[in-house]
Amino acid sequence: MSHRVMAVAGLGSMGHGIALSLLSAGHTVYGADVNRDRVSRLVAAGGRDGTATVVSADIDTLVVVVLNAAQVEAVLFGAQGWVSRLKPGAVIIGSTTVAPDFARRMADQVEGAGLHYLDAPISGGAARAAEGRLSVMASGSPAAFAAAEPALAAIAETVHRLGDVAGTGSAMKAVNQLLAGVHIAAMGEALAFAVSQGLELGRVVKVISGSAGTSWMFENRAPHVVDGDYAPRSAVGIWPKDLGIVAEIAARAGLPVPMTETALARFRAAAEAGFGAEDDAAVTKIYAREGRLKLPGEP
Amino acid sequence: MSHRVMAVAGLGSMGHGIALSLLSAGHTVYGADVNRDRVSRLVAAGGRDGTATVVSADIDTLVVVVLNAAQVEAVLFGAQGWVSRLKPGAVIIGSTTVAPDFARRMADQVEGAGLHYLDAPISGGAARAAEGRLSVMASGSPAAFAAAEPALAAIAETVHRLGDVAGTGSAMKAVNQLLAGVHIAAMGEALAFAVSQGLELGRVVKVISGSAGTSWMFENRAPHVVDGDYAPRSAVGIWPKDLGIVAEIAARAGLPVPMTETALARFRAAAEAGFGAEDDAAVTKIYAREGRLKLPGEP
Repeated sequence: MSHRVMAVAGLGSMGHGIALSLLSAGHTVYGADVNRDRVSRLVAAGGRDGTATVVSADIDTLVVVVLNAAQVEAVLFGAQGWVSRLKPGAVIIGSTTVAPDFARRMADQVEGAGLHYLDAPISGGAARAAEGRLSVMASGSPAAFAAAEPALAAIAETVHRLGDVAGTGSAMKAVNQLLAGVHIAAMGEALAFAVSQGLELGRVVKVISGSAGTSWMFENRAPHVVDGDYAPRSAVGIWPKDLGIVAEIAARAGLPVPMTETALARFRAAAEAGFGAEDDAAVTKIYAREGRLKLPGEP
Repeated sequence: MSHRVMAVAGLGSMGHGIALSLLSAGHTVYGADVNRDRVSRLVAAGGRDGTATVVSADIDTLVVVVLNAAQVEAVLFGAQGWVSRLKPGAVIIGSTTVAPDFARRMADQVEGAGLHYLDAPISGGAARAAEGRLSVMASGSPAAFAAAEPALAAIAETVHRLGDVAGTGSAMKAVNQLLAGVHIAAMGEALAFAVSQGLELGRVVKVISGSAGTSWMFENRAPHVVDGDYAPRSAVGIWPKDLGIVAEIAARAGLPVPMTETALARFRAAAEAGFGAEDDAAVTKIYAREGRLKLPGEP
């Protein structure tokens, strides 16, 4: 794989992990974030300062991993936005979870500026991001895929190639988030219900993990509740945004999504109760409060 | 394993499969059901007519697989109920999905009559029942477990031993049904959402099955929707009952269960729309109607 000059916009846990994977693959990696500490952390790890006033390199690949659609638009088209600073033919890999319509609009505008755009939401969490083992749900023009290839090879274990139109990747990610969010809320409801019936949670997790009631999220998150460990691997605060996107897209399509709406309300309640920065398994605490139940690790 | 004389009360798809497994293990098996055709079907397969007026054998094991708590009470304690007809020391294996309180009451009454009671809900479906590969979530006295051992060995691939008090098995089954029911409704919602976004369902099932949004139920049921095949492996009509039990238990414990309530409402809507006897994946059709979407196999 030839050496490339790349950049990552948004150096949260996912963006930092992606930058590390790109560095490990031998590429030059610039990092940008409004939080200077995050930029310093990347520079300490071998990256370069990607702040607009500093960068002067020929960057051919930009991975955008900021928090939401508004931030995507700002980093691409705002004052000192990346679109006006990338060299012709460069590719922008949009990995923020956004609505399919928004991804299509970004692709149109980016292509109009002579660049390529790959609609490429990611899943897998921060640990896998740092290991180059993400799952990418990607769609875009053949030229965008070709230009993005070196970056995808460095960050992804699996690339789902979902066609040549931007928006399909984001739609697939929305389907995944609908299920993942509902399953986490169901996990919390089921564990609280189990406690209310006097069941021992460790045993519940063992039995259910081998039964028809299991889910990937149950097996991944329920142990956090059993351990009373709410250090955020993925935070409660992600879900009002991601399920909000699903609900919004569904409403525009005229499709009622009551399971999504109910889970969304649970995560909003958890965030409002002060658990927004905790691991998303903390949605279980809302149930425990309402049912006056004691979870493991609580006084 | 020594030869035993056993009986199965309730010869629906699960009970018939259980009776076949007991026959395969070499036991004598009487079968009883209000539907005479079902009794004849078992007799044709090598079983015996377990109707009260016919039976005179020394039955030491009774597996109860009727539809609900009212039927359990009737077959055990009604006119010509089994409790008064079994020999002292016989075991009753209660495999109907019921509330934990009800299972405890049955155990008390059965033990008061000089018999053993094992609270032993099952999961796995009719095909696994006939293969002797069910999963059993069991609790009861050591004497009940010992007496039930030959039957459990014949019908179960996995026996979860959940302690010596009746009710724990039923509580664990309720946790499983909460999650399973919510996951099926979520599967329907996610597939309808995917259709609304123009995604190809076969591709969706493939991608999601390898992603964080997957569940056992998604992987098992979503292919039915892709194939447009709603022949009932497990029917919509099961869920208003099973999720109704969960909601009732939770209400008694003072725990709100909004995910369960939402899924319950979806299955009730599906049953009211005429899909009660179809495979439970048909909950997807409710979404398709509401969103005016076309599912595979529909005209």
